[in-house]
Amino acid sequence: MIIDVHGHYTTAPKALEDWRNRQIAGIKDPSVMPKASELSISDDALRESIESNQLKKMQERGSDLTIFSPRASFMAHHIGDFQVSSTWAAICNELCYRVSKLFPDNFIGVAMLPQSPGVDPATCIPELEKCIKEYGFVGINLNPDPSGGHWTSPPVSDRHWYPIYEKMVELDIPAMIHVSTSCNACFHTTGAHYLNADTTAFMQCLTSDLFKDFPTLKFLIPHGGGAVPYHWGRFRGLAQELKKPLLKDHLLKNIFFDTCVYHQPGIDLLTNVIPVDNILFASEMIGAVRGIDPETGFYYDDTKRYIEAAKLTPEQRHQIYEGNARRVFPRLDAALKARGK
Amino acid sequence: MIIDVHGHYTTAPKALEDWRNRQIAGIKDPSVMPKASELSISDDALRESIESNQLKKMQERGSDLTIFSPRASFMAHHIGDFQVSSTWAAICNELCYRVSKLFPDNFIGVAMLPQSPGVDPATCIPELEKCIKEYGFVGINLNPDPSGGHWTSPPVSDRHWYPIYEKMVELDIPAMIHVSTSCNACFHTTGAHYLNADTTAFMQCLTSDLFKDFPTLKFLIPHGGGAVPYHWGRFRGLAQELKKPLLKDHLLKNIFFDTCVYHQPGIDLLTNVIPVDNILFASEMIGAVRGIDPETGFYYDDTKRYIEAAKLTPEQRHQIYEGNARRVFPRLDAALKARGK
Repeated sequence: MIIDVHGHYTTAPKALEDWRNRQIAGIKDPSVMPKASELSISDDALRESIESNQLKKMQERGSDLTIFSPRASFMAHHIGDFQVSSTWAAICNELCYRVSKLFPDNFIGVAMLPQSPGVDPATCIPELEKCIKEYGFVGINLNPDPSGGHWTSPPVSDRHWYPIYEKMVELDIPAMIHVSTSCNACFHTTGAHYLNADTTAFMQCLTSDLFKDFPTLKFLIPHGGGAVPYHWGRFRGLAQELKKPLLKDHLLKNIFFDTCVYHQPGIDLLTNVIPVDNILFASEMIGAVRGIDPETGFYYDDTKRYIEAAKLTPEQRHQIYEGNARRVFPRLDAALKARGK
Repeated sequence: MIIDVHGHYTTAPKALEDWRNRQIAGIKDPSVMPKASELSISDDALRESIESNQLKKMQERGSDLTIFSPRASFMAHHIGDFQVSSTWAAICNELCYRVSKLFPDNFIGVAMLPQSPGVDPATCIPELEKCIKEYGFVGINLNPDPSGGHWTSPPVSDRHWYPIYEKMVELDIPAMIHVSTSCNACFHTTGAHYLNADTTAFMQCLTSDLFKDFPTLKFLIPHGGGAVPYHWGRFRGLAQELKKPLLKDHLLKNIFFDTCVYHQPGIDLLTNVIPVDNILFASEMIGAVRGIDPETGFYYDDTKRYIEAAKLTPEQRHQIYEGNARRVFPRLDAALKARGK
């Protein structure tokens, strides 16, 4: 079984974006603020948006199940206040839930949180609990920078975030650390902000003792861990300077990397440097990089090809494709087992 | 000949730091602001600080010449105003100049600029010209974020920076794009901010047509290019989505990477993915990572060992050690030739 742990609903029907644009207009002019109930997307429209996109590519490429969350760049937590984020998150999560009901063998949800800059993360807990308990979602996406590139929140190791972590531990769910659109002109969203956030969050964990407070907390760092595996020697050396334990003991019981690295040499480095137990298969397909690589003739984001070509044993490949995902997402494992898988 | 293009004067006598602390105190209380002339460091003290540190390690490791600039993390352009930065840059540059006079075969200078957040970069030109014309320096370090982690300046592709670029082209000098200390609690200076800045600056160049305006402008991106080589497929794919030329045509006539990557797999990826003509040997020794790697028994920042072990021909190694540095730093080449080297 091949589980892709990093999929976003980037292909949602255009009615969603239209509603969001009306909501954004409504922040300045409350008289035009739409109600959530004014968004209507049929099951057929959802089905079409998935069958002609993600599901088609999953079948072509040979993956079985995608862990599916709202479009990361559209979370845009910096827009409006908590109420705006709350309504928007509820709508986006419900759509992912409906996709998971329409295609129960192929999609299972991960929740976007209604974060808002300067607002206590504890306010996210009702939406989080609804998604896990009512929708059967198996994890959350946590944005370490709801300001969208201004980095005004405390580091992920700060007690500011502890209410979320307490709930994660209680519900036994991991968080993917994933920023959204950058509204800072310095940072291109998918070419700089995403990768920078991955590196930043890892280093925030490295300098802290967060996982002493939460020994079972699990973070998935996307995009192959940003710059981290490429600079693994630097991070090992920095941990040493800071008198921290070896990274394998200090962080690798709690931090995992996905395989969203869009060329063979990157995947080769990742699988060479990072223990296989800490690598989870993912493509973020129909995401930042949608083209075909002229050097290979295949889609850049067809990461399964790179895993197939990497120097790995069948057992190691199984860990990356399925075993680690079941371990990091215990509720996914339970859901699969409940279906006899 | 082995040229290390990335060295900072991290080991300057403590009198320098003491003077800086007095200067910082003087920002709040002008009555304690020291004069530049109150800093006195003897040639013997400079000699001792170099002979027992950088020069010793260069001899042990087998490099010949270091391109030497003031300590990056101490630039701290976010502290004080332009006058504070200006006095501080002049002091730091003069010390590097004196080192280059004391050890003319082993050190040649690169200038720190007196940048200050919100201040026109053109104000840096007098210091820049002094360093190049009077001190014989061969390049500059340009901080793309003088705010120290708040990223309040425009992207490096913006016309904001053009006065510097015009002068660089006129004087035929490259810039290393190098940030300083982060004063944003989210970003660890050497574990996140440095690498993020490398990635960010590369992406700013990628999305722009800067090098159409300045076809001979040269940027050296340190720390092995941040996350860029590891995610080279992502960047190739993003350029494709943005209808930009192939990266080799779009950026690689103007952008170069150093080898400050502190483990073998990282250097292997760098030299495998990035054309050899775009890689310049560097160690940033006695910098961020000063320890010995328990996995190898050698210093993390002894990057020459990784270059020696990488799959490269003798000609390629010569390019990385010397040839590319002479090409990217034409004034270095001229200075060496003037000495019959």
